[in-house]
Amino acid sequence: MPDVARTLTVDLGDRSYPILIGQGLLGSADLSSYVKGDRALIVTNETVAPLYLERATGSFPGKAVDSVVLPDGERYKNWETLNLIFDALLEKRHTRKTTLVALGGGVIGDMTGFAAACYQRGVQFIQIPTTLLSQVDSSVGGKTGINHPLGKNMIGAFHQPEVVLIDTDTQGSLPPRELPAGLAEVIKYGLIREPAFLEWLEDNMAALRSLDAVAMVEAIYRSCACKADVVAVDEKEGGLRAILNLGHTFGHAIETFTGYGTWLHGEAVGTGMLMAADLSCRLGYLSADDLERVVRVLQSAGLPLEPPADMTPEDFLRLMAVDKKNVDGALRLVLLESLGKAVVTSDFPTQKLEETLARFCSRVS
Amino acid sequence: MPDVARTLTVDLGDRSYPILIGQGLLGSADLSSYVKGDRALIVTNETVAPLYLERATGSFPGKAVDSVVLPDGERYKNWETLNLIFDALLEKRHTRKTTLVALGGGVIGDMTGFAAACYQRGVQFIQIPTTLLSQVDSSVGGKTGINHPLGKNMIGAFHQPEVVLIDTDTQGSLPPRELPAGLAEVIKYGLIREPAFLEWLEDNMAALRSLDAVAMVEAIYRSCACKADVVAVDEKEGGLRAILNLGHTFGHAIETFTGYGTWLHGEAVGTGMLMAADLSCRLGYLSADDLERVVRVLQSAGLPLEPPADMTPEDFLRLMAVDKKNVDGALRLVLLESLGKAVVTSDFPTQKLEETLARFCSRVS
Repeated sequence: MPDVARTLTVDLGDRSYPILIGQGLLGSADLSSYVKGDRALIVTNETVAPLYLERATGSFPGKAVDSVVLPDGERYKNWETLNLIFDALLEKRHTRKTTLVALGGGVIGDMTGFAAACYQRGVQFIQIPTTLLSQVDSSVGGKTGINHPLGKNMIGAFHQPEVVLIDTDTQGSLPPRELPAGLAEVIKYGLIREPAFLEWLEDNMAALRSLDAVAMVEAIYRSCACKADVVAVDEKEGGLRAILNLGHTFGHAIETFTGYGTWLHGEAVGTGMLMAADLSCRLGYLSADDLERVVRVLQSAGLPLEPPADMTPEDFLRLMAVDKKNVDGALRLVLLESLGKAVVTSDFPTQKLEETLARFCSRVS
Repeated sequence: MPDVARTLTVDLGDRSYPILIGQGLLGSADLSSYVKGDRALIVTNETVAPLYLERATGSFPGKAVDSVVLPDGERYKNWETLNLIFDALLEKRHTRKTTLVALGGGVIGDMTGFAAACYQRGVQFIQIPTTLLSQVDSSVGGKTGINHPLGKNMIGAFHQPEVVLIDTDTQGSLPPRELPAGLAEVIKYGLIREPAFLEWLEDNMAALRSLDAVAMVEAIYRSCACKADVVAVDEKEGGLRAILNLGHTFGHAIETFTGYGTWLHGEAVGTGMLMAADLSCRLGYLSADDLERVVRVLQSAGLPLEPPADMTPEDFLRLMAVDKKNVDGALRLVLLESLGKAVVTSDFPTQKLEETLARFCSRVS
């Protein structure tokens, strides 16, 4: 293992697994012991394949490794693309002893995990997330799935990986917007549950934006550990786990409005967290100073602070109505009781939500 | 409850559920206590809807019940049809608190169960199987899924229902070929594990073919109990459960060759069981008398005893090679050590399998 490396174990009883985090792990770590059969299929996309497919294939010495290369982008996170994975598995006659390997960002991870959950009613899978966002989000929790034209992530399954390998070097090849988008999810962990981590982020944002490996390993480790704590309490999203969706209800509305993939998921979540913080402030949970800290940390991460200019309050209300957290028609949101403490509630005056939407939507419908 | 009624509990710890079996249950039993939220969506097809949809809707007093009507047939057991269920759920804004209700045969049960497994990563479902085959097969085991052009049931999930309601009266409205097809699976339970039940079937086949309710409730109860015993030992198909596939490897080859839906699943399994018995006889497990008993009981159930005339041994070998039971390329079959005792093995001379195929295939390629 390289000098800068840490291992986090996600404790889920007999489905526990390690997350290996380090600089230069891809190509140096041997993952073959995590492949139970003789064969594996690496699923990646046309952007990632030229960069990392060869090194990923070399991570499984002694195994027969096939690959399938999908088109790149959130708009391909649908059944048609998922079916390309099933086609490859069946054409190459992979049995239920096979292992799927997700090599790419969140879209690849979600689709590969869902394919693994469904192929012959369930095969094993391994994750090699290559974007910061997928490293701190998809590595823990077992959520997999695809989009439906009427809603994001509406079709999916819970399916846990055998191992997750995170090589911080992969961030060097990302388009410039991807790093801030990933940092939005990192900041989220500080806001919902870890006030000390939020302070650490305020102090280390410059190091993270310059891809300092020591800082990056630390940020990923603490983010994954925070999510693992929450998921250990609530694996199937009965209660506490919903706090991980801070900013996501507003954010999903932005993503649906603009069409999947126009805004990056993390960008939409960043703006969504700010909107949630604004509402929390209007409800008297956060002080004006707290809200200003949220603005500053998002700004220092390079994130957008406003939704699309042509989006109206009614667009938000309509698109937020189909959120999975809603119970019996009532809109439920993740809000901040304080910085570092989230709460899930539908107990707020609609008037306050409308004030927040009016503040962020320049155009009134 | 009517006079002729029994309840079987499938014991799966905290996912245990009852199977209610009786004459005239549909419309008289109240299933609303099994719906945890306020809403349900009944999934059925255009053949079953005019017969039973109104009565099924009336089985959930106090709940808001929607329905979606799919085209009828195994050839629609695919993603496009499955998506009609997701469309209905999302258009009507069903949340993750909803319950799906499968009203129909095995295709409806498999697709509805898979939709329930995947919608918002898992919602509850209830089964009301209306064919004998689905009553004795899909009621127990939690297998759900759809077909892929390259293989049957290749995409799916394990997902257990809240309750199963079986009304034997629904068999009166079935096309004539459906009853023998269902009896094939009933006979299967006798052959693989219940020699006393096999004798009971030999004595009561006439009563079953005339739809005698007492005999039918008994046959369904004993079939479901046998399958529940096997599944309790092996919920996710590591070992024992594979014996439930007696006749299925040969049968799937017939179904794939003829195109899904030309042969009924039970018809193909019936012929497949005879082929497996023939091979078991050639291997010295069964006597000639045993084999003759298998022939007679399948014949008395009204089942076909030969595969399609234009199917060659090579067709069988090619189509059997993709079976899910195969491990690392070796063909595994369910065979009979004796009548009432099945074994899963790949330990047989290929020569003997070829003799069986030659015996059943009139045309040599």
